[in-house]
Amino acid sequence: MKVKESNKSINIASSVKTAAAGAHLTKKPKDVGLIYFGKDTVSSAVFTKNKIKAAPVLYDMELMKKNHNIKAVIVNSGNANACNANGFEAIESIVNNLSSKLGVKKDEIFVASTGIIGEDLPYQNINSSLDELIDNMGNNANEFAKSIMTTDTYPKEYALECSFFGKPFAIGGAAKGAGMIHPNMGTMLGFIVTDINISKEMLDTALKHAVDHSFNRISVDGDASTNDTVFIASTLESENEKIVDDGELYRFFEDNLTHLCTNLAKMIVKDGEGATKLAEVIVVGADSCSDAENIARSISNSLLVKTALFGQDPNWGRIVDAVGYANSNINPDKLKVYIGDCPVFEFGKKASADKQKLNEYMKNHEIKILIDVGLGTSSYNMWFSDISYDYVKINAEYHT
Amino acid sequence: MKVKESNKSINIASSVKTAAAGAHLTKKPKDVGLIYFGKDTVSSAVFTKNKIKAAPVLYDMELMKKNHNIKAVIVNSGNANACNANGFEAIESIVNNLSSKLGVKKDEIFVASTGIIGEDLPYQNINSSLDELIDNMGNNANEFAKSIMTTDTYPKEYALECSFFGKPFAIGGAAKGAGMIHPNMGTMLGFIVTDINISKEMLDTALKHAVDHSFNRISVDGDASTNDTVFIASTLESENEKIVDDGELYRFFEDNLTHLCTNLAKMIVKDGEGATKLAEVIVVGADSCSDAENIARSISNSLLVKTALFGQDPNWGRIVDAVGYANSNINPDKLKVYIGDCPVFEFGKKASADKQKLNEYMKNHEIKILIDVGLGTSSYNMWFSDISYDYVKINAEYHT
Repeated sequence: MKVKESNKSINIASSVKTAAAGAHLTKKPKDVGLIYFGKDTVSSAVFTKNKIKAAPVLYDMELMKKNHNIKAVIVNSGNANACNANGFEAIESIVNNLSSKLGVKKDEIFVASTGIIGEDLPYQNINSSLDELIDNMGNNANEFAKSIMTTDTYPKEYALECSFFGKPFAIGGAAKGAGMIHPNMGTMLGFIVTDINISKEMLDTALKHAVDHSFNRISVDGDASTNDTVFIASTLESENEKIVDDGELYRFFEDNLTHLCTNLAKMIVKDGEGATKLAEVIVVGADSCSDAENIARSISNSLLVKTALFGQDPNWGRIVDAVGYANSNINPDKLKVYIGDCPVFEFGKKASADKQKLNEYMKNHEIKILIDVGLGTSSYNMWFSDISYDYVKINAEYHT
Repeated sequence: MKVKESNKSINIASSVKTAAAGAHLTKKPKDVGLIYFGKDTVSSAVFTKNKIKAAPVLYDMELMKKNHNIKAVIVNSGNANACNANGFEAIESIVNNLSSKLGVKKDEIFVASTGIIGEDLPYQNINSSLDELIDNMGNNANEFAKSIMTTDTYPKEYALECSFFGKPFAIGGAAKGAGMIHPNMGTMLGFIVTDINISKEMLDTALKHAVDHSFNRISVDGDASTNDTVFIASTLESENEKIVDDGELYRFFEDNLTHLCTNLAKMIVKDGEGATKLAEVIVVGADSCSDAENIARSISNSLLVKTALFGQDPNWGRIVDAVGYANSNINPDKLKVYIGDCPVFEFGKKASADKQKLNEYMKNHEIKILIDVGLGTSSYNMWFSDISYDYVKINAEYHT
């Protein structure tokens, strides 16, 4: 079993083409992206849990119930196609046009949008860009990754080339940021392509696992958007024996897919609006998984922890406080808190940490916080960013 | 039934004396406060739900199970007496000394602390201040209110003189802020004094109701502290017929106590670190009380809503988004959102609000947001502040 990083991004196979074009939805030269699969696929997707869902999310949820042989994915930035009057009309029109131009069925097209909400989608602009988009199809995943950016400061791409007992397969992904800022509400979008031979059921299971352990464990500002979507398609081109159950190859694929999603998720946190730090909180020894998750979320979403992080202050009091109000089973006397490898709280009180070492540690760009609840065996981890002046500036200065 | 505001604060009757003295716990001249009741009382208290509780909270919780005839309350700022090694030793020593000096029993003394956590309480300093404290006893509630301040920029006091069919009673209160900042973790403390003749059971019920509708409905940064405490004592001096059940006089008292607590709670939000706005979100038409509360909390705690408020931007998208992830039953097509009296979202999409009027409204210091869920009859409201540059500055620049 071998794994190495690849620079192919989502162009993992010659059957996968990517493209970007300009539709004047943003100030960027290219704000519409396309992934085209030149063959049949098995696809899966997970969507935002927000009860206010954008039109493309509602559309795709229905689509994926009927068909999972997706041949094309079209994404626009600049407009979320959410909470507006023409959401479904816009999707219908774009899908109609794209299907006849690409020669694929309408229900083989997956759609996604990110950008301002509440405004009608100027879909004629997108329709007018389709010829350019199709002309541009090639091995230029980076163009696609840039076309879906909103407040992201850099495109987010990652790929792995794997080998399982001599049979190679690849996984590539592109994502855009989670900071929900200008314009109005950004969104987390992720698009993953693989060539592994796998059943629909096992692909669903693998995607759910990978997203639960990556994109669902990041917090920039704690808000979930109307448009969050992670999509995966396999071209099934690898010569591996088809994965149909939870065997060794499945585990190997799931691990690598999770690793890929985790890397993309961490890029999103690092690129959070105004972020200067990437922190990871690891909770161990909790009574239950939900207790561990509640504690991790409580810390990751605490404004006081996030501002202390920005101020490079090892403020264990704010961490302990967030543990205390996490609505999880804890016993202060058994709780231990570490920042880096320095104990800061134990036996119900402040631990005698090396203050100098702790202050030095806080200057790092990446910070680890370990919470040992001391009660059970459950664990959870999350990645989060700090809150800086720039976060407030970006968010306060944006005007609807 | 008459009600008028009073400037007596907690000195509502001659039997209630207040005092402040200096114990060198802070840079303030006076950082220890005392309320002394010259007679028997009926008392009640509610405490933080944080599972990490300060020593005075744990001490008082036990105390209030055994005795509700509290004769004195001693409070210090500058040190929370939490997560340290000498918490109970400190309380024991202070209570011993104060009880012999005041001539009251040890279990007639209620204690509270606010300030930095994790540091031993220098209780000899407090013991040394007790003579000054007792010498200073008088009608100077303002001195008491100032002595309990931490990052508060002004003391918070309010009092009402009420009359029910010719029988007067009074309620007065003092509180300190909820912003959990320098030093380390502030705390919400509230002390209320009344003279109404009431049973212990009905006083408990009234305090719980009042706190649930006031202090529990404010959000500065969403964090609950280790020390939050609201205490009430009645001197029973009013000539009203003793309240023993849920009758008209009880309702009148409960309403006024709730009004008093609400006023103190709003003062705390207004004085939140760096706050420039006082916002109220009112949720109506929800399927259940918990749904209404979840929506109100989701909005009040949203960083994106708080920063938009600071930027004076009527960003309804962020409000609608926070409704969507509140984990409450909603139907986007029935949901209506108003900022001031301008509709901003209805029928599943942006409403055609008067943009000019909306922008003007956002310049007000007090902002109201109304959410009509359109499904049921339950409601909830909360008060919250914005998040400004100064909030980040105060919180990031504080070093432990």
